[in-house]
Amino acid sequence: MATRPRVSRRSECPISVALDIFGDAWSLLIVRDLMFKGFRTFSEFSCSDERIATNILADRLARLEAAGILCKAADPADARRVHYRLTEKGIDLAPALVEIILWASRHEKTKAPPHLLRAMRSHREQFLADVREQWASS
Amino acid sequence: MATRPRVSRRSECPISVALDIFGDAWSLLIVRDLMFKGFRTFSEFSCSDERIATNILADRLARLEAAGILCKAADPADARRVHYRLTEKGIDLAPALVEIILWASRHEKTKAPPHLLRAMRSHREQFLADVREQWASS
Repeated sequence: MATRPRVSRRSECPISVALDIFGDAWSLLIVRDLMFKGFRTFSEFSCSDERIATNILADRLARLEAAGILCKAADPADARRVHYRLTEKGIDLAPALVEIILWASRHEKTKAPPHLLRAMRSHREQFLADVREQWASS
Repeated sequence: MATRPRVSRRSECPISVALDIFGDAWSLLIVRDLMFKGFRTFSEFSCSDERIATNILADRLARLEAAGILCKAADPADARRVHYRLTEKGIDLAPALVEIILWASRHEKTKAPPHLLRAMRSHREQFLADVREQWASS
């Protein structure tokens, strides 16, 4: 059985607490893969463009699960396979991810699809409602 | 002269690019200290509740400067002392920080001041405009 890593708190500042949970280079990419790319399995996450190493991926999945951001479920098509799903707490990261996307696409060279950026910028609430709805129906 | 760390890109996904820049446990705490606490100096940052080690602080300040998120300026009162300031690019992180604060205060035990959370939640645009204005006049 995998040990559940305990998240220690450096302070009770909300930004610090959040970074205790996902303040690393990989965790939010897994949340992204679940939220925007529809990825559900370990092998899908490991094939993302950033090529996360499998030991880091396993560690971050365990941490995100321990933090209540994602949960495991059996694949409906094959109960031996594990799927990952975002929890409500994980889906609630959507506004932060949107702001990070908008910031990076404004200030860095990225390949963010322009129509998605427009939707995030001009119809933010609708975009967030769509993410939530898409998740609920998946 | 300090070397300027080059930020390598794992992909051109905007979230990945953003995490290449500030995807660690400390960088956004320095941005927080500048943006919300009015801290300006190395010794102020090093005294924050999270007790960042001075070698990590020096490294993150150099990275954030190389990324154009903050810049150095001479202290108006004593030109030998260095002050740090957020650039426009750094101030533009305010919406992402606000969403991270709201997420953490909703889902974790934090000491976020309730009146600030209310302002962020109910008067988001005004709160962000105030941050920007406060910065411009400081």
